[in-house]
Amino acid sequence: MGQLSTLFAPERVAVIGATDSEGAVGRAITENLLESFQGDVVAVNPYQDDVFGLECHDSVADVDDVAIDVGVVVVPPDVAVDSIREAGEAGIRNVVVITAGFGETGSEGAARERALREVAAEYDLNLVGPNSLGIMSTPVGLNATFGNEMAQEGDVSFMSQSGAFVTAVLDWAAERDVGFKDIVSLGNKAVLDESDFVDQWGDDPDTDVILGYLEDVSDGAAFIETAREVTQETPIVLVKSGRTDAGASAAASHTGAIAGSERAYEAGLEQAGTIRVETVQELFDYAQILSDQPLPDGEEIAIVTNAGGPGVMTTDAVGDSGMGLAEFSDHTIEKLSETMPDEANIYNPVDIIGDAPAARFEAALETVLADENVAMAVVVACPTAVLSYEELAAVIVEQQSAFDQPIASTLMGGKSVGDAAPMLNDAGVPTYFDPARAVDSLDALRRYGEIQSREYVEPETFDVDRERARDILEDAAERGRNRLGVEAMDLLDAYGIPTPQGNVVNSPGDAQQIARDIGDDVVMKIVSPDILHKSDIGGVEVGVAPEDVRDTFEDLVVRARNYQQDATILGVQVQEMVDLESGTETILGVNRDPQFGPLVLFGLGGIFVEVLEDTTVRVAPVSEPEATAMLDEIDSAPLLRGARGRDRVDESAIVETVQRLSQLVTDFPAILELDINPLVAAPDGATAVDLRLTIDQEEL
Amino acid sequence: MGQLSTLFAPERVAVIGATDSEGAVGRAITENLLESFQGDVVAVNPYQDDVFGLECHDSVADVDDVAIDVGVVVVPPDVAVDSIREAGEAGIRNVVVITAGFGETGSEGAARERALREVAAEYDLNLVGPNSLGIMSTPVGLNATFGNEMAQEGDVSFMSQSGAFVTAVLDWAAERDVGFKDIVSLGNKAVLDESDFVDQWGDDPDTDVILGYLEDVSDGAAFIETAREVTQETPIVLVKSGRTDAGASAAASHTGAIAGSERAYEAGLEQAGTIRVETVQELFDYAQILSDQPLPDGEEIAIVTNAGGPGVMTTDAVGDSGMGLAEFSDHTIEKLSETMPDEANIYNPVDIIGDAPAARFEAALETVLADENVAMAVVVACPTAVLSYEELAAVIVEQQSAFDQPIASTLMGGKSVGDAAPMLNDAGVPTYFDPARAVDSLDALRRYGEIQSREYVEPETFDVDRERARDILEDAAERGRNRLGVEAMDLLDAYGIPTPQGNVVNSPGDAQQIARDIGDDVVMKIVSPDILHKSDIGGVEVGVAPEDVRDTFEDLVVRARNYQQDATILGVQVQEMVDLESGTETILGVNRDPQFGPLVLFGLGGIFVEVLEDTTVRVAPVSEPEATAMLDEIDSAPLLRGARGRDRVDESAIVETVQRLSQLVTDFPAILELDINPLVAAPDGATAVDLRLTIDQEEL
Repeated sequence: MGQLSTLFAPERVAVIGATDSEGAVGRAITENLLESFQGDVVAVNPYQDDVFGLECHDSVADVDDVAIDVGVVVVPPDVAVDSIREAGEAGIRNVVVITAGFGETGSEGAARERALREVAAEYDLNLVGPNSLGIMSTPVGLNATFGNEMAQEGDVSFMSQSGAFVTAVLDWAAERDVGFKDIVSLGNKAVLDESDFVDQWGDDPDTDVILGYLEDVSDGAAFIETAREVTQETPIVLVKSGRTDAGASAAASHTGAIAGSERAYEAGLEQAGTIRVETVQELFDYAQILSDQPLPDGEEIAIVTNAGGPGVMTTDAVGDSGMGLAEFSDHTIEKLSETMPDEANIYNPVDIIGDAPAARFEAALETVLADENVAMAVVVACPTAVLSYEELAAVIVEQQSAFDQPIASTLMGGKSVGDAAPMLNDAGVPTYFDPARAVDSLDALRRYGEIQSREYVEPETFDVDRERARDILEDAAERGRNRLGVEAMDLLDAYGIPTPQGNVVNSPGDAQQIARDIGDDVVMKIVSPDILHKSDIGGVEVGVAPEDVRDTFEDLVVRARNYQQDATILGVQVQEMVDLESGTETILGVNRDPQFGPLVLFGLGGIFVEVLEDTTVRVAPVSEPEATAMLDEIDSAPLLRGARGRDRVDESAIVETVQRLSQLVTDFPAILELDINPLVAAPDGATAVDLRLTIDQEEL
Repeated sequence: MGQLSTLFAPERVAVIGATDSEGAVGRAITENLLESFQGDVVAVNPYQDDVFGLECHDSVADVDDVAIDVGVVVVPPDVAVDSIREAGEAGIRNVVVITAGFGETGSEGAARERALREVAAEYDLNLVGPNSLGIMSTPVGLNATFGNEMAQEGDVSFMSQSGAFVTAVLDWAAERDVGFKDIVSLGNKAVLDESDFVDQWGDDPDTDVILGYLEDVSDGAAFIETAREVTQETPIVLVKSGRTDAGASAAASHTGAIAGSERAYEAGLEQAGTIRVETVQELFDYAQILSDQPLPDGEEIAIVTNAGGPGVMTTDAVGDSGMGLAEFSDHTIEKLSETMPDEANIYNPVDIIGDAPAARFEAALETVLADENVAMAVVVACPTAVLSYEELAAVIVEQQSAFDQPIASTLMGGKSVGDAAPMLNDAGVPTYFDPARAVDSLDALRRYGEIQSREYVEPETFDVDRERARDILEDAAERGRNRLGVEAMDLLDAYGIPTPQGNVVNSPGDAQQIARDIGDDVVMKIVSPDILHKSDIGGVEVGVAPEDVRDTFEDLVVRARNYQQDATILGVQVQEMVDLESGTETILGVNRDPQFGPLVLFGLGGIFVEVLEDTTVRVAPVSEPEATAMLDEIDSAPLLRGARGRDRVDESAIVETVQRLSQLVTDFPAILELDINPLVAAPDGATAVDLRLTIDQEEL
């Protein structure tokens, strides 16, 4: 942990490729470092004697024996890997590779990036980039970037997969009172990626909020694990772009990143405890409030306003959020009715009417914040002749610090706002023109509070027959079969997922034996990888009486042969009848995301999945609370719970099946896709009635 | 129309209640008028001799014979109605009532407001307010408000149901280059309401965009009719607050407005052709782009950027919008590949990479705008050492005017933006920090283009038997019955809505006669307003053979009597069997919204309406294209169209039924609520199988 601390707090930095040539990136880096870095700067360039008065070393190997903490590499791409090897050889542990011309530029670059990775592994380098704008850390004045602006000091650390976005943000922040602790331009993420920085900043006492602009996540599972822990202490707010199909292909053409599916990101970033936003405005609004305001101890908000209409707009915004309007205690109502004019609305939203001076805001705010039903407040003011925004700002700041509860403010107007906005900002109270923004920002606080209070539950490990499952998969692989069906139902059985009694058999006699064991009418299906729509060719018989089982076996085989002479016939499945009427057909599916790994899908069967697309997903392994949440998330959930006179199904059986399936696909990366369709959920359990899966033999 | 033109362009304005008393509203109004109004100001106040050097008249009756165009009333509430009567008597046609203490303040105020309405009607007054901040019109320097700021001249007219919001907007606009043509604070809308101002501004050549902040719409039907016409020429952008339940009750307590249902507003404002927004930021962003930029001739956008990451974010925003990324012609691709560097991405989004000077933006922009597949463009720039934002702004302005296609820009950054933003704003090209805002604003243009190109189709008037329907309703009313069921099926028949053959009868013999006419098995149901769940008491028999009809009649009556001895039994319904299996059960419902009148709801029956709430509504009368759109809007629409092997139903039959039902409820305001559940849609038509309605006898 925290092994990147010397990267951001070095005592000595070497610029490998330092130069004073006009327009060169190496010049910009050297100048930026010399400008504000509190440590030593070492110049390395065999072709110059000195750079801006610094002695130029031919190589890092020539630098005297004081250790170099960070090497910033700006040499041309064809010599970059060698330079980095030299750096590793010289004992430099942290390397920031500014040089471009790697994975982002075709096959030669990709080969170079592989070489880079090997060198980094050999010397155990903390390597940023390549193709990075660089890094910054304000406490030590470190600006190892080639941008134009140095960040102001602050408590937000920021990583970005777009260097241009970093320059834009710095340029914007330079005009405002927005500061940063560390900034890193991730570049191609050949070695260090978002998980490493999340890990670092999670341990950094000077980082209160982690912000990120990401186009992909290199290793979804690692990210979830790291971020889940870090977000217990430090909020992470992310833009993950490439959300839409168009955006994803734009991202792919821009960074060459293989975009995983948006659904995987949606689930994975949520499971990781991050707050995902879509716009730059949200990113910085949330950063500000998360770094400056305390977390609310509830989700109830009080609105105090001098203007009815804006009060209504604010109330709408609260209605759209995850917060609720606080219901005031009798004491609060009494006190407001004593202190406010008759025309005031003393219920929430509190409208202290247009002739309110700052003192009336103070009285109202003090009263509502003292109410234990109120977790946070928003002040919404319109300019009037009797209200001084500066006085109001002072009141808000005072009340905020007196109660230490979150407050955001909306000072509507422009000209009248004057010095009030900086007064509020300096005190950490966000202020906006638009009430919706104030409410959104407070809602981000509430969401983070919720994330922080999540109790993480380890995914349960059930006692399963892993060897038996392995045998089934390996057996299929040996026979050269990638797509399996009901003949692999034992795989589910091995993982404790209930399946109907029965089996796939190859003779009428065996079929009859199974039917006898079942002791009732059975379902019989032809089992053939070549016949997809079995019903269409008469390959399925339902309600076969025990005495008809032999004949039906023969019939099914004949029909299959008639359909396709050379079809591979694996046998006939003889299965206990499952009462579809009394149960509800659900679906469990798994596919594998390139970044996040196995993704488990749940939904109701038939039209719900096919027409209404009413499904939900989680990245496996899925814990019990996560599986339970999946059941709540689908719109059709009431149908599992007795809606319209249905039987209430055994939800715990579905939850357990989700977890067991999650364990199965986590244990066997060879399972690429898997569908249990239907999983029939009944009042007394859930049964997997049909199965399809695809395996990758290479992974076995 | 345009009868309000003298209200906004008067030559002489009288302040009725003018004063120079410190702090008085009459003083602020008088001062504001004297400050900038180009016409004459007349002071009326029997208690002062002069006000700011103006002679004070005792009454408007005393003013010499030059006509007064507008009277601004600021007298106390108890004398306001008399003052307005005097104004009417003196021939003043336009009155702006600033005075508060009317409908917003309890029963006395409500009575006063009724009196005000009567006087206004008697003298045919154009009356604004009461409880209004006042009005403004910049071309004549008219500031008849008691606010602090006069608006700058512009081409946007703005109405607001919140006076405080007007002051906030003016205060904000004073700091920016945001101008207005007319502004009105609607106050209590005792006489003039939003429809009147929409009507006025629709005819006003100096108003390019109409903005509104509304908490309710006084007359939904009138608003739809007026706005639908106006929006063919002039866009209307609205915040309608009280969207959420919490917001609606806040609005009710603030203005005393009876909030109609949010669903009615959603449908009604959409049918009116307005663009509804949720935040103040959207309101003014859309106002700016709609007033400054031409409409796009398509929905395809080109993105030109020097930064990959922000290009991806912009692409995401396009993916979220109703626009699409333009696919470039071969010629464009060729030209871009000739003029752009090798590393550039010449497909959309066009990434002209980080070393692009303004000239490269120019070449790229020129090329994409010349492509006929491109309807609009967004430029997204990040600050770099080689890019001057001022030069870029000049390029954008030039290309915008050369091609006259909509452009929005995102100059990311702050410090570097400098003079570029005002250059762009002056030329009418919106510029933002956040690409999502630029894309949203362009999407508003696209939406308005779509609204403008809508061809309005009059709701069809079918040839129906209105008298027969009236007889049925009156007959029920005479019997004192408000809730009707299947016994009123003839109502549907009278309006040409197919119902199963059959009738409600009162004797076993009549029952048998009907069954004979049908000539097949029938469904029989007890008809009683006292028995809601007929099936539960054995009150429904399906598949009754003709020979069993007599006995079944007796059985049904006995069961009903056993259930409730004194139940009112209206008879037994004998109905042709409708094949529910081959059809799809849909629902048509009607309820009456206080503002918008009859609202027609459509959805699939059962779980779709009850569990998934998958329904859509329109304000009646519903035209054929609107009814057709309703079928498209529900998520379960594919189930009408042959999804999962179902029969494709006769959609035109549903569409026609929606229209006929819409005609019925429009013809008879006495129908408060009505449900056809189910309307069974089959491949060859749609049949109303069951009916419930509630009538208001007073309305007949």
